[in-house]
Amino acid sequence: MIKVVLIGSGNVAHHLIKAFAKSATAEVIQVFARQKESLIPLLDALKITDNFHDLIEADLYIISVSDDAIANVSSQLPFENRLVVHTSGSVSLDGLDKKNKKGIFYPLQTFTKNKTVDFSQIPICLESENETDFELLKNVADSISNAVFKINSQQRKVLHVSAVFVNNFVNHLYQMGNEICIENNVPFEILKPLILETANKVMTLSPKEAQTGPAKRNDTKTIEAHLKLLSNENQATIYKILTQSIQNNGKEL
Amino acid sequence: MIKVVLIGSGNVAHHLIKAFAKSATAEVIQVFARQKESLIPLLDALKITDNFHDLIEADLYIISVSDDAIANVSSQLPFENRLVVHTSGSVSLDGLDKKNKKGIFYPLQTFTKNKTVDFSQIPICLESENETDFELLKNVADSISNAVFKINSQQRKVLHVSAVFVNNFVNHLYQMGNEICIENNVPFEILKPLILETANKVMTLSPKEAQTGPAKRNDTKTIEAHLKLLSNENQATIYKILTQSIQNNGKEL
Repeated sequence: MIKVVLIGSGNVAHHLIKAFAKSATAEVIQVFARQKESLIPLLDALKITDNFHDLIEADLYIISVSDDAIANVSSQLPFENRLVVHTSGSVSLDGLDKKNKKGIFYPLQTFTKNKTVDFSQIPICLESENETDFELLKNVADSISNAVFKINSQQRKVLHVSAVFVNNFVNHLYQMGNEICIENNVPFEILKPLILETANKVMTLSPKEAQTGPAKRNDTKTIEAHLKLLSNENQATIYKILTQSIQNNGKEL
Repeated sequence: MIKVVLIGSGNVAHHLIKAFAKSATAEVIQVFARQKESLIPLLDALKITDNFHDLIEADLYIISVSDDAIANVSSQLPFENRLVVHTSGSVSLDGLDKKNKKGIFYPLQTFTKNKTVDFSQIPICLESENETDFELLKNVADSISNAVFKINSQQRKVLHVSAVFVNNFVNHLYQMGNEICIENNVPFEILKPLILETANKVMTLSPKEAQTGPAKRNDTKTIEAHLKLLSNENQATIYKILTQSIQNNGKEL
């Protein structure tokens, strides 16, 4: 078994602990966590430490903390020349202290604590400084996911900004739809099957093929009627800009 | 059995024919279509007509044509005082000719020809001029869907504009994410599980609770790095406006 030490106790760390519990290749032998309590249901309390100097020897150290804390945590590790990776989409390889061999182990998904995910479906993006380290990371990742990709730091940045569009911004549009419903006493429930099907469609069609609606058909009558219905300037601004972008097919004017 | 005549041969008409084929309450006894060919695989050719004067007597006539054609089609019907409904989200009850009893039968979903949908999960929004007509519409709708709602014309307009946000605009953001990936040689595939989970999350959490990302956390360093990566002004404008809207929680400044 490949020995893994996890550093962190957030959402990603939680889901990784659960995923590795089913792995036949890699085993979490220790977890570093400032708050032990949240991890107790997941693993033996004896495997949890809150002292960097108690970290035991392992083949791989996975730092899963907030982006801002990665540099500090990696510099505090009391050993050298071991393989240390982080799980962030936006921090580069150089965000890790150079005293250890560096790598990235980035699961691209939105995690919610207490909501189970099928880790085998989650893409894991890997990067390392050399081929040997990459092989080890790939063995570990393959044991918990069916979608493992070699992605360099530049590509990972691109993925991260794309993820902001298809996750953060999409969710904000859900919120705007929800608010328009609430303001007008219409149950948001009615839109839920549409939300799911919209996502499902682009699993097989390209988003460009899947595009429909008044903006796509240049239906100015409906667009004007919609703008009259919107109760605040922010909703109207976003409606206008996205309508224009669809009409220009996402290109600049 | 309640006798239904369908007028139209587009996506919605196709899916309605398939849904009614399984109904124990309502039966499509005739379909009006200018192009008979596309319907031949779905029903007996003898049930298809392209002449309004051949329309037979039925309990319900469902007009499922493009928004712009509804008024014209409803005025051409060679009978009076029967129940005639349309399937549009944006046309009001008055969009139908007043010589017949008017109603709305609006299935709120995005339909793609040749892509099967589970009609029982599709919300159907009903409206009518009187209670008797409503009872008939409800019986028909209940026989093909488990999500039937009484929705007036004003509420339907609100639903339609909300649907533009959560469907048309969301799909456009998928397209932007896809284009950012293509421009940078990153497979869009990697984002697909994230797209599905983003939609799944709001089935149980409110979109507000589900919101994450650099805008939500006010992570200006990441926001600036993302803006540098975007290759065109349109992408950057939409990034900025949606980021600002998330930071203001969808409210005006």
